[in-house]
Amino acid sequence: MTYATHNLTDTIVALATPSGVGAIGVIRLSGKDAIGIVNEVFHGKDLAQQPTHTLHFGTLRNGEGRILDEVVVSLFVEPKSYTGENVVEVSCHGSGYILQEAIQLFIEKGARLAQPGEFTLRAFLNGRMDLSQAEAVADLIASSSRSSHAIALQQMRGGFSDEIQKLRQELLDFASLIELELDFAEEDVEFANRDELKKLVAKIQSIIHALIQSFKLGNVIKHGVNTVIAGRPNAGKSTLLNALLNEERAIVSEIAGTTRDTIEEVLNINGVQFRIIDTAGIREAEDTIEAMGVEKTMQKVAQSALLVYVFDVIRTQPEEVHADLAKLIHENVHVLVVANKMDLNPYTKREDYFGKSEVGSRKAEEGDEEVGSWKSEGAEGTSDFQLPTSDFPWVPISAINNMNIGYLKEQLYEAVVTKQLNLESTIVANARHHEALQKAYESLERVMSGLEAGVTSDFVAMDIRGALHYLGEITGEISTEDLLGNIFGRFCIGK
Amino acid sequence: MTYATHNLTDTIVALATPSGVGAIGVIRLSGKDAIGIVNEVFHGKDLAQQPTHTLHFGTLRNGEGRILDEVVVSLFVEPKSYTGENVVEVSCHGSGYILQEAIQLFIEKGARLAQPGEFTLRAFLNGRMDLSQAEAVADLIASSSRSSHAIALQQMRGGFSDEIQKLRQELLDFASLIELELDFAEEDVEFANRDELKKLVAKIQSIIHALIQSFKLGNVIKHGVNTVIAGRPNAGKSTLLNALLNEERAIVSEIAGTTRDTIEEVLNINGVQFRIIDTAGIREAEDTIEAMGVEKTMQKVAQSALLVYVFDVIRTQPEEVHADLAKLIHENVHVLVVANKMDLNPYTKREDYFGKSEVGSRKAEEGDEEVGSWKSEGAEGTSDFQLPTSDFPWVPISAINNMNIGYLKEQLYEAVVTKQLNLESTIVANARHHEALQKAYESLERVMSGLEAGVTSDFVAMDIRGALHYLGEITGEISTEDLLGNIFGRFCIGK
Repeated sequence: MTYATHNLTDTIVALATPSGVGAIGVIRLSGKDAIGIVNEVFHGKDLAQQPTHTLHFGTLRNGEGRILDEVVVSLFVEPKSYTGENVVEVSCHGSGYILQEAIQLFIEKGARLAQPGEFTLRAFLNGRMDLSQAEAVADLIASSSRSSHAIALQQMRGGFSDEIQKLRQELLDFASLIELELDFAEEDVEFANRDELKKLVAKIQSIIHALIQSFKLGNVIKHGVNTVIAGRPNAGKSTLLNALLNEERAIVSEIAGTTRDTIEEVLNINGVQFRIIDTAGIREAEDTIEAMGVEKTMQKVAQSALLVYVFDVIRTQPEEVHADLAKLIHENVHVLVVANKMDLNPYTKREDYFGKSEVGSRKAEEGDEEVGSWKSEGAEGTSDFQLPTSDFPWVPISAINNMNIGYLKEQLYEAVVTKQLNLESTIVANARHHEALQKAYESLERVMSGLEAGVTSDFVAMDIRGALHYLGEITGEISTEDLLGNIFGRFCIGK
Repeated sequence: MTYATHNLTDTIVALATPSGVGAIGVIRLSGKDAIGIVNEVFHGKDLAQQPTHTLHFGTLRNGEGRILDEVVVSLFVEPKSYTGENVVEVSCHGSGYILQEAIQLFIEKGARLAQPGEFTLRAFLNGRMDLSQAEAVADLIASSSRSSHAIALQQMRGGFSDEIQKLRQELLDFASLIELELDFAEEDVEFANRDELKKLVAKIQSIIHALIQSFKLGNVIKHGVNTVIAGRPNAGKSTLLNALLNEERAIVSEIAGTTRDTIEEVLNINGVQFRIIDTAGIREAEDTIEAMGVEKTMQKVAQSALLVYVFDVIRTQPEEVHADLAKLIHENVHVLVVANKMDLNPYTKREDYFGKSEVGSRKAEEGDEEVGSWKSEGAEGTSDFQLPTSDFPWVPISAINNMNIGYLKEQLYEAVVTKQLNLESTIVANARHHEALQKAYESLERVMSGLEAGVTSDFVAMDIRGALHYLGEITGEISTEDLLGNIFGRFCIGK
């Protein structure tokens, strides 16, 4: 299906709020005739005579004068609207029947159903936002955590576009000098200082490189971190999962429908979502590693970014832990080793692990940071048990007593959000942007090697044009109907 | 749980739109401080300085200045609002995360989460609508067909209240005369003319009686008609169901989520919904009557208002039809007998049943009305087969060819909406109103018999007071906290 970007003079209509039962539902119209169309079926003030940004109570009536609903109409006169066109929002009672009939009524009067994302497409085409900002609108709607929300909002408000546009402008200034050289090709002049160009390209490459690097984090923030909790039977996987989810669940259950549809458990740590995949499966397979073989667990690990390996500190021997880890480890997976049931460990004093506070008290977590740094050095000394400190970071916990769970969460978070990257810097979370940045980077690589090799201006110019093209695609200065269809076709209808 | 009708000075907040994915979500606040609370976190114009019924674009920011969203705020200054208080509606991007954070922000600034129906409760308590109108708001939101919508809208716009209030006022006028007599009890005067009072009571009783009678239809319109399709194996039940649902399904599927959650098939005929219950069960049990016995089908029929009995006009003998019907019939169920596979009947010419049009063409339905009237007279003459015309209305169809399906739908509709009652008159669809009307009617019965028996004024006055009380309960002139809790506690939050 091609996404039609023509017919942009039509007035479009769509339900802007989710379908389902609610107090109100909002229908949005945009286009030259939006006000006129609503005016035909609205009984109240004459909307054509009202100023922009005003609200009007009245009734919607069909051709026979039958009242469909009492509504409040919001009026946005062009260009002061989301799309830049005349926009009318009709707030009806939240009945599916009424909303459907009302949309039907507007269609009868000349509106047509909006395509997915068409309101935002129009906002883009009317210069109300650039492409990267428009894409951020969809991300913002889909955002389900503090960090994914922060990235989307920064992008929607133009932070990312500004950065790209600035780079692009600097490159463009140089490019025009090079292009100028082409006009004088026979005279072999150099308007563009090659050393300065190299410096600029190197600078832009380093910024683009950082952006490309940020994609891994951005992607994780946008989609969550696929996480597997694995371990031998009775290592305490379920207890650990419950301990991790404990507080979180109470919060999540307050928002209807946030996690209901998923088969994952979602753990939110400092705004990063950890998607603990197929927990039901993990729970059933209490005996994964021994009985079902390592295969199934390995499959799960292969699909994940993070493996939390739990072992029973009393019943599991170090060589067993090492053997399990050797089997489970996977190239792209980050591993966190958790020593569970530390409260039962006869070789260690509890206080050494959990501070002086009583077992079972949440206060113990206040000392976590110190405990954490102490563990990797002193653990061997207090126990016959050789903890596997060498290869992987490990965390001693007592899941059943909620001990060190806060510290474990910190470790999970740090496994994803490394120190080099932080949430305040610009983060690329969009695969399309990532791809465009990579292509721009490659073009700049060619510019650089061309400059090193002293190739002629026309080759340099071509590669700079390539880089400009890919950077321009991000903000939409360069766009095709296919590209727009790809982007906006994925939006929900009504946005 | 008691529904607290106190704390009405608080400013309340709730999500007004359904939860789920949508372009926008609207948060509604109502109360003295609604504007002030939003103003604290809204960056844009100073909302306190803005006139009522205006729209304002800006950002929501939390305490640290972090931007949560770009929003549009709708301002309704008291008393010109839904609740009669200051109302602010904040239109956010439709992300569950954003909406939750925003509500949290308003709560931090002093609002509290609204109870179910609290906005409408406030509208009632502030005299913006009476109780029957307030109840209609919930019905309107729940309305899913043209007729249930019409009843709810009429009620919300005060049609029903007006009628009740008028009756009550007339009765009240007389009551005050009777009450006056009580002050002069020793003098044995009659201020209220007994004959006129009798006339009035009789008139009111007849109106109330009609309203009570309308409840059966109203209830059916509001909740749909529970319908069972039954018949022997291979009578064509599934084919008939599909033929009935055929057009309808296409329409329903356009509105996401309208029927997805139900285990019923819903057929909408002229705005009345027929809920064909547990169709999956019916479908599995293709051999209901013979194999599974009549019990299961009888159970289903007992839960239903309408039984559509289908038989194969070729393979089923009249005595079998009669035997089935004798087993299936139930006191309160309306029966419609459908003779299927008429296209295969060798004893009848198809044209006799379906007009001159070709079998398989929808045009055949244009002649349905005549066909319908013809069938119950002439069918016997053209066939050896004695159709069971005597006891029940029956309809000859060919489900597989879509023949006479339109006529069958008319018959289904007429089985419910009888000629005495029509959708234009006032219809009681609310069980509480129905009960209050019945009690008012009984009080009036006692008034009447008291007047006939010539009892003293005080007895007459007491029964009139009873009738006034019950009528007053409908519109809320008489209300208790329990009653309000009962009514508004069933609303959705945000309305």
